[in-house]
Amino acid sequence: MEKIVIKYYKKPRLSNPVLISGLPGIGNVGKITVDYLIEKLKPERLLDIISEHFPPQVFIDSNSVVSIAKNTMYYKKRRGKSDLIFLTGDFQGTSQEGQYELSSKILEICKELKVSMIYTLGGYSIGRIVDNPRVLGAVTDIDLIDDISRAGVIFPKGEPAGGIVGSAGLMLGLGKEVFNMKGACLMGETSGYFADPKGAIAILRALTRIIDVTVDEKDIEEKARQIEEITEKMKEETTSKNRDDLNYFG
Amino acid sequence: MEKIVIKYYKKPRLSNPVLISGLPGIGNVGKITVDYLIEKLKPERLLDIISEHFPPQVFIDSNSVVSIAKNTMYYKKRRGKSDLIFLTGDFQGTSQEGQYELSSKILEICKELKVSMIYTLGGYSIGRIVDNPRVLGAVTDIDLIDDISRAGVIFPKGEPAGGIVGSAGLMLGLGKEVFNMKGACLMGETSGYFADPKGAIAILRALTRIIDVTVDEKDIEEKARQIEEITEKMKEETTSKNRDDLNYFG
Amino acid sequence: MEKIVIKYYKKPRLSNPVLISGLPGIGNVGKITVDYLIEKLKPERLLDIISEHFPPQVFIDSNSVVSIAKNTMYYKKRRGKSDLIFLTGDFQGTSQEGQYELSSKILEICKELKVSMIYTLGGYSIGRIVDNPRVLGAVTDIDLIDDISRAGVIFPKGEPAGGIVGSAGLMLGLGKEVFNMKGACLMGETSGYFADPKGAIAILRALTRIIDVTVDEKDIEEKARQIEEITEKMKEETTSKNRDDLNYFG
Amino acid sequence: MEKIVIKYYKKPRLSNPVLISGLPGIGNVGKITVDYLIEKLKPERLLDIISEHFPPQVFIDSNSVVSIAKNTMYYKKRRGKSDLIFLTGDFQGTSQEGQYELSSKILEICKELKVSMIYTLGGYSIGRIVDNPRVLGAVTDIDLIDDISRAGVIFPKGEPAGGIVGSAGLMLGLGKEVFNMKGACLMGETSGYFADPKGAIAILRALTRIIDVTVDEKDIEEKARQIEEITEKMKEETTSKNRDDLNYFG
Repeated sequence: MEKIVIKYYKKPRLSNPVLISGLPGIGNVGKITVDYLIEKLKPERLLDIISEHFPPQVFIDSNSVVSIAKNTMYYKKRRGKSDLIFLTGDFQGTSQEGQYELSSKILEICKELKVSMIYTLGGYSIGRIVDNPRVLGAVTDIDLIDDISRAGVIFPKGEPAGGIVGSAGLMLGLGKEVFNMKGACLMGETSGYFADPKGAIAILRALTRIIDVTVDEKDIEEKARQIEEITEKMKEETTSKNRDDLNYFG
Repeated sequence: MEKIVIKYYKKPRLSNPVLISGLPGIGNVGKITVDYLIEKLKPERLLDIISEHFPPQVFIDSNSVVSIAKNTMYYKKRRGKSDLIFLTGDFQGTSQEGQYELSSKILEICKELKVSMIYTLGGYSIGRIVDNPRVLGAVTDIDLIDDISRAGVIFPKGEPAGGIVGSAGLMLGLGKEVFNMKGACLMGETSGYFADPKGAIAILRALTRIIDVTVDEKDIEEKARQIEEITEKMKEETTSKNRDDLNYFG
Repeated sequence: MEKIVIKYYKKPRLSNPVLISGLPGIGNVGKITVDYLIEKLKPERLLDIISEHFPPQVFIDSNSVVSIAKNTMYYKKRRGKSDLIFLTGDFQGTSQEGQYELSSKILEICKELKVSMIYTLGGYSIGRIVDNPRVLGAVTDIDLIDDISRAGVIFPKGEPAGGIVGSAGLMLGLGKEVFNMKGACLMGETSGYFADPKGAIAILRALTRIIDVTVDEKDIEEKARQIEEITEKMKEETTSKNRDDLNYFG
Repeated sequence: MEKIVIKYYKKPRLSNPVLISGLPGIGNVGKITVDYLIEKLKPERLLDIISEHFPPQVFIDSNSVVSIAKNTMYYKKRRGKSDLIFLTGDFQGTSQEGQYELSSKILEICKELKVSMIYTLGGYSIGRIVDNPRVLGAVTDIDLIDDISRAGVIFPKGEPAGGIVGSAGLMLGLGKEVFNMKGACLMGETSGYFADPKGAIAILRALTRIIDVTVDEKDIEEKARQIEEITEKMKEETTSKNRDDLNYFG
């Protein structure tokens, strides 16, 4: 077996396709966004990526059937617009080498599929719960900024400070400097403490404008509300606990 | 030397063979089961697997003769039934990459030997000593469940929760999605605190029904009884120690 | 993608070129020196080195444009003197294997470019702030010592005690014993606690004599003065804090 | 550059050569023994092994000349006896994979050189200082025991308990099961707390009988005496310190 095995389900002819990548990461913001788009747009399964760069693990579904750790690409053909490719998965590569080898393999696939633009989605951890998460952008080419900022993405100087670590950054970096492909990274603000649909909604609103897609946001807003309730309850408990502590000492 | 060296002892023609894999793992349940079957059925040595994915270590036998860390396959021809192949060994691959490369190499060998079905055996750690360990199953294909559950294996929803990590899961996952092979994992409940023949007996009873083999269980039951005595003694000591503690404070 | 990708910007014909390597390391002394030479001499960009031996990371510039972690070589043609090649970068290889593979790749490139001599620059950590850092040398061939010591580099017996770890040493060692190339390592004394322009100035003065280059030292001296002010302030604060502590107890 | 580079100095025709391997390890016992034999017998340098499986490091000699981390083989031709090959070095492979790849490369070289027997030397850590260290043996073939035990090597059942980890064991294990070569491991007892010439002397006495060599033991005995003095002094200090402690409390 090769280090990375690509298992094709279809070999479609795609027209000017755009890749949207949302792998697990900070606040799982990128993955939640892409999984929501997959749930709503019901694209076709294109291929699976199985690799020794993922943990040696299978998941078990409710029927007791196993499925191996993987990444998966889906595609959606559209009339008069760019076709869409979605990348989601259980893991990013677990080692530095795995990150490079998986990202460059995905870019090779994109090259074959004649992908014209890559959007990688991720979280931008700010260490506190935020009510109205911003969406920050970074690009491979300065002339991409205008269009993307029109969709509400901001490009503040010096943010994110340390650059982008992991697949969302690497696919752009390798895309630009090795594969000659254009791309942008959209980062939704998140506390980074838990899976965060709110950061995902922020990205979703910007991204759907950029790629010209309409999706019903009801279900993801419901998820965000549930998370909010849980965190509100936790805050209250912490506050009342602190009050109790005061009483106790007071 | 290749990363994985296969050293064949025999090149038999096998009829519809079934692989039974029991490598070291949780409570060593899988390995105890397979080693017991090898002890009782006295199969022929088929091949050794030597690999840089095992620790750089030799064992020394009672004659001061070294033998390198390895995995070994045995085979047993049977009249009118599927032939049997057993896989046992000193270690699983010690790295993530090693796990993938060893599992896929074993599956390649199975493909060459025209193995029709893979059973991987393992432990299911429940964190406490259990009197009547259950055997849980997971499969590559839903239509395998009926036959296996008739042998007493159960398929509860949502168990094991986190999936299966390591060789027992990976051989099924890669078998299904890369090598197009069918398989099932049988997991015997165990505390996971020590090598546990009781979990192995539970698997043995189910497995022998599934593969239609009869083995005398006397010796493994004796081992289980010895372990039980030790753990009973430990419990008593803990209890009386706790009583002493009570006296001391009381 | 290969493990190491070389991206050429130019393919110049160089005359008897000399490599000067300053990658990140102790006190960043080597990198500061080479980056200062690049800033002042404005050499041409020769090539980028992109590799899975660097962290999977992109940096974001003030225009929100990403650039991948890399090493870069520059060249400067000179009349009547050896041409110069500079090597700088964001990282050294992060693993032992990465160190070897990157160093030997760089030496292969040097071989192709007919590099006649390699100077690797680094810091020599002495664990305290030093006013007049010395520059220590080590060489691949004993007959290189005379010329280099004339530039003020010293070759004390038994220093540095443990040898040289990382790229600055490895490029010499592999150069000498695998690639048949000559080289010297110049190590500027540094506390090793922070990026240290003072150690870099010491190297710069020796190196510019060796390779016969003149650069204005004003800007790097300014940086050194700024660092000195900061460390002076820290010392004063520590001293006055200690005095306070004395008062407190006294 | 390959992962392992072999740099030949000579290509001698050897007669029935025997390999004696002493790489760094427990108490450095094996390396001390082989280095002493090299010092006394003054064999010719045969080859260097340079590898990314060693640390990325150079050493600096008293002339400020660098030499890369390496393993080295020497050979000694003898009239009417087996020729001798010695293996010494700065390091063993630092990773599990490195251990396998280096050991199997060395065995490939041995195969080419038609080595008829391999002796690997090592320490057997017993966790306390021992006055008369025993030499324990382990072999690839039971019929090697007689000759070796005649030289004073003992083969007690069940010792060393956990087998042999690292190059000394692996070269025998791979030799036996992959390269079809015979070998024995001689392990000198040592506290394992420091470089221990006493364990080395014990091996030296057995080994020189086995390979029929005479060496003056004066210098290594002197080294052992120096170490003994240091440890005696440490013991006294500890004892008198304990007595002081008693006085203090008494």
